[in-house]
Amino acid sequence: MTNQINFNKLFKSLLFLILLISASLSAQEAKYVFFFIGDGMGLAHVAAAEAFMDADDNKNTSGGLSFTKFPVTGLSTTFAENRFITGSAAAGTALATGHKTSINTIGMDAAKKLPLETIAEGAKKNGFKVGIISSVSIDHATPACFYAHQPERNMYYQIALELPASHFDFFGGGGFKDYGGADGQISVVENALNQGYKITDTKNEFYELKKGDGKVIAMGSVLEPSGAMRYAIDQTHEDIPLKDFVSKSIELLYSEKGFFIMCEEGKIDWAAHENDGASAVNNVIALSEAVESAIDFYRKHPDETLIVVTADHETGGFAMGSSLKKYDSDIKLLKLQEISAQSFTVLADSLFSVRQNQNPEFAMHLVEVYFGLGGETGIPLSDYETEMLESAYFVSAGKTELESNQEYQLYGGYHPLAVTATHILNNRAGLGWTTWSHTASPVPVYVLGAGSDSFNGFYDNTDIPKKIARAMNINFNN
Amino acid sequence: MTNQINFNKLFKSLLFLILLISASLSAQEAKYVFFFIGDGMGLAHVAAAEAFMDADDNKNTSGGLSFTKFPVTGLSTTFAENRFITGSAAAGTALATGHKTSINTIGMDAAKKLPLETIAEGAKKNGFKVGIISSVSIDHATPACFYAHQPERNMYYQIALELPASHFDFFGGGGFKDYGGADGQISVVENALNQGYKITDTKNEFYELKKGDGKVIAMGSVLEPSGAMRYAIDQTHEDIPLKDFVSKSIELLYSEKGFFIMCEEGKIDWAAHENDGASAVNNVIALSEAVESAIDFYRKHPDETLIVVTADHETGGFAMGSSLKKYDSDIKLLKLQEISAQSFTVLADSLFSVRQNQNPEFAMHLVEVYFGLGGETGIPLSDYETEMLESAYFVSAGKTELESNQEYQLYGGYHPLAVTATHILNNRAGLGWTTWSHTASPVPVYVLGAGSDSFNGFYDNTDIPKKIARAMNINFNN
Repeated sequence: MTNQINFNKLFKSLLFLILLISASLSAQEAKYVFFFIGDGMGLAHVAAAEAFMDADDNKNTSGGLSFTKFPVTGLSTTFAENRFITGSAAAGTALATGHKTSINTIGMDAAKKLPLETIAEGAKKNGFKVGIISSVSIDHATPACFYAHQPERNMYYQIALELPASHFDFFGGGGFKDYGGADGQISVVENALNQGYKITDTKNEFYELKKGDGKVIAMGSVLEPSGAMRYAIDQTHEDIPLKDFVSKSIELLYSEKGFFIMCEEGKIDWAAHENDGASAVNNVIALSEAVESAIDFYRKHPDETLIVVTADHETGGFAMGSSLKKYDSDIKLLKLQEISAQSFTVLADSLFSVRQNQNPEFAMHLVEVYFGLGGETGIPLSDYETEMLESAYFVSAGKTELESNQEYQLYGGYHPLAVTATHILNNRAGLGWTTWSHTASPVPVYVLGAGSDSFNGFYDNTDIPKKIARAMNINFNN
Repeated sequence: MTNQINFNKLFKSLLFLILLISASLSAQEAKYVFFFIGDGMGLAHVAAAEAFMDADDNKNTSGGLSFTKFPVTGLSTTFAENRFITGSAAAGTALATGHKTSINTIGMDAAKKLPLETIAEGAKKNGFKVGIISSVSIDHATPACFYAHQPERNMYYQIALELPASHFDFFGGGGFKDYGGADGQISVVENALNQGYKITDTKNEFYELKKGDGKVIAMGSVLEPSGAMRYAIDQTHEDIPLKDFVSKSIELLYSEKGFFIMCEEGKIDWAAHENDGASAVNNVIALSEAVESAIDFYRKHPDETLIVVTADHETGGFAMGSSLKKYDSDIKLLKLQEISAQSFTVLADSLFSVRQNQNPEFAMHLVEVYFGLGGETGIPLSDYETEMLESAYFVSAGKTELESNQEYQLYGGYHPLAVTATHILNNRAGLGWTTWSHTASPVPVYVLGAGSDSFNGFYDNTDIPKKIARAMNINFNN
């Protein structure tokens, strides 16, 4: 009997050891999933934001962003089915459905014929609560790709009508780009209300939202005419920051059933299109803060939470080196910029509509005040830089006409004075841009939590939702 | 007795199972280590090379490079101790010693006082054979950082004198930038011969090298005046390709004692400084082929081989998008370029020294022949592009003088006609550059084999040799 007893004890001990080892080998299932998409956020945007946070010694030593410290990183290709340089619709469809599609297509195949099930729809079908958040309008390409199926991204009204049909539990961030409602057609708001959504658009209503409020569309308290939240650099206490939309969605959606929350920071892309480095890095920081809301949740549920942070593509051909500064950088100069190039455009156009302001001296005054360049208080400008700004003013004012291709290459279709000021400030900071469009560079993927191991390596953007679905142990269209 | 037998059998079975699981958990020690450094190779250089290999459909679908398929990827910061944008000496010292140092310092601390032991020296001390290979001169910053300790990277003669003192087993690729030997001083070749090195500089001698030849310095069969191998785009059957230096070093160094081989592809950086995309991608492909030599070895010794591929920094602010092409790309246009911008410079300078060639028509003829731009056979140029090339000719010929800062921003100190032609061709292909210098972008790390797991995530360049040393289970200065 001694042997028998030893045998039993030892057997049980060994079995327990094997179970322990097996448990550490097989990752936990991801019950709470956060999918963050920095629109247009390439490697340099991330690095520049960290350098900006640590700008006083011009060294990227702090690793100040929340997600760069994640233990797992990957790299992802982004090309579309029919173009090497992708767009947000095709890239969003790849990230939402695991399928390549054609440019401008939302959640459909490349021929724009068949709708494709999205991972958000798959999660909903499997009992998870679903939240969709964006800092631009909620009918914009990236968020739309998770709930809508339309042949063209600019069919904003049709996209917004699809939103309540998803029965997703939370939409937040921006408003709508096309509210509809003209000529007897139903407005997208009325349509959502009819289908049982509660809609908020003030800070008070937002912060009072609570579990049990049912399906919610929580719009920002201050929205631009485009339906987007303001640039992070332009936000004040009046705005609801992106991170609060993430915290609120966690509060509303948390249950034993699990949730899938997609959160896009869409204005990194908009800033990068405008080659506006200061606005871009401030929005990367806004994304990082939103990710922190998810990390706070992860700390309480580390075995069941997966956080994925990536980009749909790179925008701007952004680099942390300029031909003007050669090997030097002075990232802290970006702090001289007071408002986004877009806000400057609105402001300058308004001021220039007054006849007495219509002169290059006033233009230089504005550049001094809002970009810290020239005059008595700004950093001294070279003759060449002053000439560029004055030329830009004359083009802005319609007093100089350029051949259209040359004007595009110089100003990218933006306000000439605004983008010339950002270009000068960026070059002085040691930052450069190659394009006003997207690029085909692979993008980084940063991952933390349950199922994160499979995100290491170099893969395609269509693999990302498949990896997430495997981590969640759900099937969708793939 | 039945119980006793069962007990023993079961115990042994379970023990074996545990050992198996443990073995799969704890990575094998890396006995054969390859450390590849693509000088200046950022994410876009890698992606552009893959797109170039797959250029006919302008999609980066093939993953044609050998190392992008590696199962483990990481991202690494590159900053120097005293500058955000690093240089090859400080970055090479970080990668070789695990310590940050100051700009231009080779294998010493930031104060340029104390020599720092390198991982190659640590490997040698621990009984590994050591090989150092570079496609530029073997006394250049990156290779020098693995065997030399000098306060300034341009002390080429002193660096080369340190080479035989390392007792490393194999040096290969380029020759020397400073052979010395004037004014009664000993030449670096004589010094190496005196210390027992066998030196080869022809193809025949190189391919006849065999085990038992002792310590070897194998120089390229065709070297530029700088001591570098020719650009991959310029190489013919007369050159020894980089991959053959890797294969030969494996052949000579392979033994039960293990080896550490560092191989730098140094001309990705040189091409990128010159904003010469065609040459850059061809040298990335040369690096990929050299890595293939290591992969062939890995296949035979998968449990004991570690291959790390990374870069010391990014050069050029290279991006796969240009303001000219907007969302379009036409990477295959790079195939129109016949020779490197550097070779074009030598050729053009020689041709322009003849009086009858000193006219813009001849310049345009050269651009047509070597870059496939304009004329009757090249792609049609816009008036603006033709003007840029003619202006560049007049600056090249000394007939136009520009303000020095403007000339630098336009031509980066290179041959104006050569770099204007590469800029036009690159922009047409949908590629852009922001600088003639390095940038501070993080660089990718691709890893395969024994101990590769620890290379996942986002870390600093100083961590890389520490990770390699842990994989090899050796100590060096850290």
